[in-house]
Amino acid sequence: MVALTFSSLYLSAQTVRYIPKHEELKYTFGGHPPVMTLKPGAILETWTEDCYDGAVKKPTDIPSQVAPIGRDNPQTGPFFVETAKPGDVLAVHIIDLEPSRDYAISSAYPGFGALTTTDYTALLNPLLPEKVWWYKVDKKKGTVSTKLGERTLEIPMSPFLGCIATAPQRGEVRWTVTPEAYGGNMDIYSIKKGATVYLPVQVDGALLQLGDGHLAQGEGEIVGTAVESALHVKVKVDVIKGKAIGWPRIENDEYIMTTGSYRPLEDAFRIAYKEMVLWLTDEFGFEQMDAYQLCSQVGEVDVVQVVDPNYTVVAKISRKYLPNVKPFGGMHEKMKSNK
Amino acid sequence: MVALTFSSLYLSAQTVRYIPKHEELKYTFGGHPPVMTLKPGAILETWTEDCYDGAVKKPTDIPSQVAPIGRDNPQTGPFFVETAKPGDVLAVHIIDLEPSRDYAISSAYPGFGALTTTDYTALLNPLLPEKVWWYKVDKKKGTVSTKLGERTLEIPMSPFLGCIATAPQRGEVRWTVTPEAYGGNMDIYSIKKGATVYLPVQVDGALLQLGDGHLAQGEGEIVGTAVESALHVKVKVDVIKGKAIGWPRIENDEYIMTTGSYRPLEDAFRIAYKEMVLWLTDEFGFEQMDAYQLCSQVGEVDVVQVVDPNYTVVAKISRKYLPNVKPFGGMHEKMKSNK
Amino acid sequence: MVALTFSSLYLSAQTVRYIPKHEELKYTFGGHPPVMTLKPGAILETWTEDCYDGAVKKPTDIPSQVAPIGRDNPQTGPFFVETAKPGDVLAVHIIDLEPSRDYAISSAYPGFGALTTTDYTALLNPLLPEKVWWYKVDKKKGTVSTKLGERTLEIPMSPFLGCIATAPQRGEVRWTVTPEAYGGNMDIYSIKKGATVYLPVQVDGALLQLGDGHLAQGEGEIVGTAVESALHVKVKVDVIKGKAIGWPRIENDEYIMTTGSYRPLEDAFRIAYKEMVLWLTDEFGFEQMDAYQLCSQVGEVDVVQVVDPNYTVVAKISRKYLPNVKPFGGMHEKMKSNK
Amino acid sequence: MVALTFSSLYLSAQTVRYIPKHEELKYTFGGHPPVMTLKPGAILETWTEDCYDGAVKKPTDIPSQVAPIGRDNPQTGPFFVETAKPGDVLAVHIIDLEPSRDYAISSAYPGFGALTTTDYTALLNPLLPEKVWWYKVDKKKGTVSTKLGERTLEIPMSPFLGCIATAPQRGEVRWTVTPEAYGGNMDIYSIKKGATVYLPVQVDGALLQLGDGHLAQGEGEIVGTAVESALHVKVKVDVIKGKAIGWPRIENDEYIMTTGSYRPLEDAFRIAYKEMVLWLTDEFGFEQMDAYQLCSQVGEVDVVQVVDPNYTVVAKISRKYLPNVKPFGGMHEKMKSNK
Repeated sequence: MVALTFSSLYLSAQTVRYIPKHEELKYTFGGHPPVMTLKPGAILETWTEDCYDGAVKKPTDIPSQVAPIGRDNPQTGPFFVETAKPGDVLAVHIIDLEPSRDYAISSAYPGFGALTTTDYTALLNPLLPEKVWWYKVDKKKGTVSTKLGERTLEIPMSPFLGCIATAPQRGEVRWTVTPEAYGGNMDIYSIKKGATVYLPVQVDGALLQLGDGHLAQGEGEIVGTAVESALHVKVKVDVIKGKAIGWPRIENDEYIMTTGSYRPLEDAFRIAYKEMVLWLTDEFGFEQMDAYQLCSQVGEVDVVQVVDPNYTVVAKISRKYLPNVKPFGGMHEKMKSNK
Repeated sequence: MVALTFSSLYLSAQTVRYIPKHEELKYTFGGHPPVMTLKPGAILETWTEDCYDGAVKKPTDIPSQVAPIGRDNPQTGPFFVETAKPGDVLAVHIIDLEPSRDYAISSAYPGFGALTTTDYTALLNPLLPEKVWWYKVDKKKGTVSTKLGERTLEIPMSPFLGCIATAPQRGEVRWTVTPEAYGGNMDIYSIKKGATVYLPVQVDGALLQLGDGHLAQGEGEIVGTAVESALHVKVKVDVIKGKAIGWPRIENDEYIMTTGSYRPLEDAFRIAYKEMVLWLTDEFGFEQMDAYQLCSQVGEVDVVQVVDPNYTVVAKISRKYLPNVKPFGGMHEKMKSNK
Repeated sequence: MVALTFSSLYLSAQTVRYIPKHEELKYTFGGHPPVMTLKPGAILETWTEDCYDGAVKKPTDIPSQVAPIGRDNPQTGPFFVETAKPGDVLAVHIIDLEPSRDYAISSAYPGFGALTTTDYTALLNPLLPEKVWWYKVDKKKGTVSTKLGERTLEIPMSPFLGCIATAPQRGEVRWTVTPEAYGGNMDIYSIKKGATVYLPVQVDGALLQLGDGHLAQGEGEIVGTAVESALHVKVKVDVIKGKAIGWPRIENDEYIMTTGSYRPLEDAFRIAYKEMVLWLTDEFGFEQMDAYQLCSQVGEVDVVQVVDPNYTVVAKISRKYLPNVKPFGGMHEKMKSNK
Repeated sequence: MVALTFSSLYLSAQTVRYIPKHEELKYTFGGHPPVMTLKPGAILETWTEDCYDGAVKKPTDIPSQVAPIGRDNPQTGPFFVETAKPGDVLAVHIIDLEPSRDYAISSAYPGFGALTTTDYTALLNPLLPEKVWWYKVDKKKGTVSTKLGERTLEIPMSPFLGCIATAPQRGEVRWTVTPEAYGGNMDIYSIKKGATVYLPVQVDGALLQLGDGHLAQGEGEIVGTAVESALHVKVKVDVIKGKAIGWPRIENDEYIMTTGSYRPLEDAFRIAYKEMVLWLTDEFGFEQMDAYQLCSQVGEVDVVQVVDPNYTVVAKISRKYLPNVKPFGGMHEKMKSNK
């Protein structure tokens, strides 16, 4: 196990606020100068636009007609985090997420989704129709609801960030619809209040971006969109020095989680579970074959999305099967305690 | 919605018992004459051997040395169910499953598993080692436990049937390690006490086979085996006339579930969810695009195994999001009420 | 290199003739008693029906209406080859293939093909239409031709066996549309006059089956069918003792070839090339990494079909890059010399 | 068929020369200001470094030790082509390619290649070793040769550009090892002397980049590298206005070709063939189902590489099966005539 030092230990806490103007939103991961510098340990209050760039404003707005080309999935940021260098890990603890409007939206795009031909699963069949489902947000009740024909579908609201990313490695700049090793559009519903997300740092300052709020989502996000919403966001950031990771990881009070975002789906699955085996051997003291056995008997998997240019899989181990180790030097406990 | 008739309605209930001798076990799905005829509505008490053909009897037995080639995953049956014809559905309700030994086994085979090269993901890398984990079964406590190095791993016991199958379509006979449209080695942990499984009937009498008891299993079964055990099995069988399905489906009190077993993993995923959309439109009154939306926001997925010649995915919808429809004409409620 | 013995060396040559009646055709690989016994070294003259079971007899016949369900891809045989035991190799040399009718057929089935949703790539898009293309066979000119709208498409005729199989391993019986380690519906256009095919022997007598003649086919067979034809077939069979192979291999005067049939397509590709690396190290004296390098610089690939339940890939190495080794103890040279 | 205009028709020809200094090489597709502006119709003489950044200079140099991280596959350019706008097509005709050194290199990297675990096919097996094969270039004889153990492997030399790209769409910047819709590291051996390559224009000026010369390569490039070489390059560029394409296309005197670069391999295959069907219906007057049939019977496929972050497949139709149409308004004939 590596001895870790937290950059924030010697820095006093700080709360900063950044509400982007629309023209400050970003449409790529990477490729932009920072909008603000954060100290490790800082608390950031910000806001994210919905994946429709805010252009779908009423139930009769058709996304393909009102949302400008190239304005998918706008991101807030990037934020330069002091002391973060390539080879470090950026820790982001989700303190709070709240919908900022009283409606949310889901829609089917022809040629996008898990049960349709797409640009990549390129078949000759006719396309499915475009359709919008308008959701009413009831913050008091904690639900979102829409009409499916004559019936009302009401779902508990559980806001999460569909996108969270550092700048990609190798100087890449990626479309905001694509997840990969830098994080990005992973659509992981565990990235909600109470979770700590670990992201690889690939460039100086990490260059954190956030966006694509979801209020509810099933496993696979198969129609291509979740219940999409603008969000008020409150997170805490910190830096773990000298601890490289290959793919994003997540902790909450119940689970440790690893992620993989690639195609085909079995490769995303393999990445996530191999990362878990590596984590278990690196920080939890398991021999490799025993870690493999542990995953085989108590591992859980979230197939969070099977619609984006890369698919995303999350592998999870419940803490009840783990020794009492606080990974990343106890970062999750530290971050949640002083929010 | 189709008008369904239950074959069992005009037949009196029946409890039969069949305990196979070892030489009566089967090593293929299909290809065998029935060992017994069951009336629709019958309750069957039987027993299944573990996936090692019972040949691994102590912690030092190495599966590749003691288990004879071609004796993988033995099955009990087949059972001929009266009135079942191709195009019908066989319903199997799991009344009870109990481990029949005080130990259970997991092992890693070189060349089999989700994080290793295999016969199909055919790479040149050196193989991983063979290893056995011996589990103690504590029926009183309801747990299984093994040693991972110096530590003890203890997991709640939840017995389920890794294999449940009708004879395959098109005259096929398949290896007992392979799942497909006939069911087979799906390794679905929801096929446990209280669940009703629906299988396509492909041949007269359906020819039900059962086997491969598991006491615990993580999502993906990545090392290649679950906690494997011989089981005492009690199930009820029935036939739904005139209601064809393409792939196995499952109901319990909480969920309706569809399955897909194929490669690559995204195709298994697509099959399962398309079956769910078809079910929702066929029996629950949803228009297709609304069914697609419903799945996208409240669908759940179990990636039960990513190790067999076909991978298996389960799509699930909680009943709380569904209208009060009893699918298959209420078969699940009927079967669980008079066990 | 293993010392090999040919069963036929001590047996005198034999020419036998078997023309199946329609009711003798088979609709599975495996699962049938032999129609005839062949001695190693025997020459077999036989006939194969087209993939439409001969039911499409004129341009206006619609396959889905005239071809009975379960009568896909009929096979001739099986032939029991004396001395062949599990762990041996069956060698089949193609002496001659001739179309037996003056027409041939191609068609598109809705839900079958490489650029359409299928039972496995299970999407919600509307299906493509069914369509038949009627080909005229000009034996004198050596071409087949059809109409594409107002134009005539004329293609050189090169008859080959779409299907060649031994009985599958592990007691399996497989649909005649599916290729796997036993061979089967591989649709490899190199299996034509002058080629020697090597098949794994899985059961006593090997149980050779042949069928699915094609007169022309592009790479991928993407519409789902080639130019399909009944064939007059003349082959020679022999047995190589004590030389197990995992997947079918092929030799002609120009190439050695290995095959893989699985999904996803990269796994079929990996199987074929890994088999080639194994062959090069086993019989041609290359160290493994050098064999890998050789394949990387001079390997050729035929993606023969991407439409069946498993996809088939052929890896090829030109003899001009190989040492003067006659693999399988010179079987190809021996078989072609005394035909 | 769309009426096309060639930007170059009203521009006089121009020959320009650009030899990059090492520090001018680029390590991403996109993300760089142009090094030079070309007029449509211009002839460009330039030079490309090998994929090892020129750092492997003798047989004992180990790539992972001498080639700096982040310096993979250096590219020459980008070149701004006047008049090219998003929605146009950039045409690049390969006039000549010559190796600029008397050696060339191939090597196996652990964790990269088609028959090994990789970052994406993430398995637990031990890695394969790193190894270098040093090739002697004999320009007079037109061959490259290396030692495989005691033997000499000699291969005809056929220089081609492994990389040719425009700047990616949506503002993306991509690693030079990755091919996608912008072209990039496709490793297509048809991109050699006499071929015309068509690339989608995504940004003003197209921003053409070239690199990664190969002197020979097998189908699949399975060890991860071809016979890698620095090249002298002579190409002609032109712009086709008002003719959008989704993926790169290629013409030579024998074939029209389409490409797809994605994962899994069947998706790359589908993209390439769907593009071909679209091309045949758009410019060659075929009805869609007839185009599908034509591809099915005479289509050819090159699986050029199965090693990069996306795999690349080329679909080809021989001109002998096509009506006498000159696609892209005859651009290929025009470009090859006045070189």
